[in-house]
Amino acid sequence: MTAKPFLVGLVGIGVGPSLTPALHMAEGKAHGLDYLYRTVDLREIGVTPDQVGEVLRWARALGFDALNVTHPCKQLVIPHLDVVDDAAAALGAVNTVVFESSRTVGYNTDAPGFATGFAEGLPGAATDDVVLLGAGGAGTAVGHALLDLGTDHLTVVDVDVDRAATLAGELSARHPEARVDASAFDKLDVLLAHGDGVVHCTPTGMADHPGLPFDEALLHPGLWVADIVYRPLDTALLTAARRVGCRTLDGGHMAVHQATTAFELITGIAPDAARMSRHFRGLVS
Amino acid sequence: MTAKPFLVGLVGIGVGPSLTPALHMAEGKAHGLDYLYRTVDLREIGVTPDQVGEVLRWARALGFDALNVTHPCKQLVIPHLDVVDDAAAALGAVNTVVFESSRTVGYNTDAPGFATGFAEGLPGAATDDVVLLGAGGAGTAVGHALLDLGTDHLTVVDVDVDRAATLAGELSARHPEARVDASAFDKLDVLLAHGDGVVHCTPTGMADHPGLPFDEALLHPGLWVADIVYRPLDTALLTAARRVGCRTLDGGHMAVHQATTAFELITGIAPDAARMSRHFRGLVS
Repeated sequence: MTAKPFLVGLVGIGVGPSLTPALHMAEGKAHGLDYLYRTVDLREIGVTPDQVGEVLRWARALGFDALNVTHPCKQLVIPHLDVVDDAAAALGAVNTVVFESSRTVGYNTDAPGFATGFAEGLPGAATDDVVLLGAGGAGTAVGHALLDLGTDHLTVVDVDVDRAATLAGELSARHPEARVDASAFDKLDVLLAHGDGVVHCTPTGMADHPGLPFDEALLHPGLWVADIVYRPLDTALLTAARRVGCRTLDGGHMAVHQATTAFELITGIAPDAARMSRHFRGLVS
Repeated sequence: MTAKPFLVGLVGIGVGPSLTPALHMAEGKAHGLDYLYRTVDLREIGVTPDQVGEVLRWARALGFDALNVTHPCKQLVIPHLDVVDDAAAALGAVNTVVFESSRTVGYNTDAPGFATGFAEGLPGAATDDVVLLGAGGAGTAVGHALLDLGTDHLTVVDVDVDRAATLAGELSARHPEARVDASAFDKLDVLLAHGDGVVHCTPTGMADHPGLPFDEALLHPGLWVADIVYRPLDTALLTAARRVGCRTLDGGHMAVHQATTAFELITGIAPDAARMSRHFRGLVS
């Protein structure tokens, strides 16, 4: 008898180019598993995001073991789950759904993915005073992860000040021991001058959104700079930060570790994170 | 770049114990393919057979490459296909659905499965005058296969005489060059006394339907005897026939070759039929 084969999917819009299927399948194969991972692009199959419950029902019926869920379904999927893991509930977003024999369980591996990647790529970095730039879904996950990592003072900055304030309020309610502020974008100079580090969580720097998210004159060697963009790994922000002498963390760390965490939730097998990271960097470069 | 992974399912009721998934997956693996094959038991997933169109739609949407279809959906599936292969249309039954990029195509591999198995297991056997016992779905496929193999005179026998007459009429219309009769069960003695061979296509002899489909005194060494039951391979009928000195063909040949034919339709790769047969016989025994 060979090991149980695994069938997993990635549900969302624009998921075709995702590297996650290749990462999971290669790691599964390295463990001797039959591990098949399919992308399910809702736009291509003519299904609207609010029908994600139907997608879940049929994926379970047709023998899927799990789904990863991404934009625009991370919130929409929640009412269709039997159980939502505490950390995912705190984020209000699920990116991993596991079909257990009698229940459907939702998790979020973005926050632990960032935390693990941060410990891996910026060991020992001070996290007392951190600026979070971008209050969307990724920023939400990173904010929770930073506070879990022990950040005392987190400042959420977004061009949409209301969005920054909303996220700051949520984070503060969840972490009353920390000080969480929202700030306008034009205060970034003061914040970065005094901060230990900044995590960039907007799309700026992606291949189709090139450029810098803020003036590179605000960078200084006492600041670590983390980017969650991973295509490319060497964003304009990280390139500028390295030139100034900052310690940096590229987006590959979070991308790999959301996948390593999901792989373990799905299979119950601890993946070889270093192998998955090498594979990921080979695919991206 | 590795070869394209394949995802296939078997849709029907009571499909859990099917050997087809194991057969396909092992053969896929032998060709270096990632080949995952899932059973989809409609009763277990709470879907009625008349909703098989929904199953097809979602299987395609979620990335399946093909489905095998069995009882009770072989007819019900037809209105949901874009194209039905000629041979399948003649049988009025589809057991293999391939999701091509822009269309869904139905095939039937039962008739070619029997024909290939017959040539393999009873080479040179006379097929001028053959008795077909059982006018259900399997009997229909075997009847078409026998006439394609050149049978001049086929007699369809069923305890339900109307069903025998209906199938005889259909076969005759499709093969006007042959003589196709229907006959009552109590004429079996005369038919077998003069026939070249008989193909048994009822459930009698299966593990949960033990026994002989007719009085073994009707067997004689000039008659070949084929059974389509394959669990067990050595049915009471074949055991009795061998004792009398008949050439025999067990149900494993058809079972394996419906699968080899489906494998090639799905993957475009010719399987190693002898390897699949060995694997099948190992699983059954």
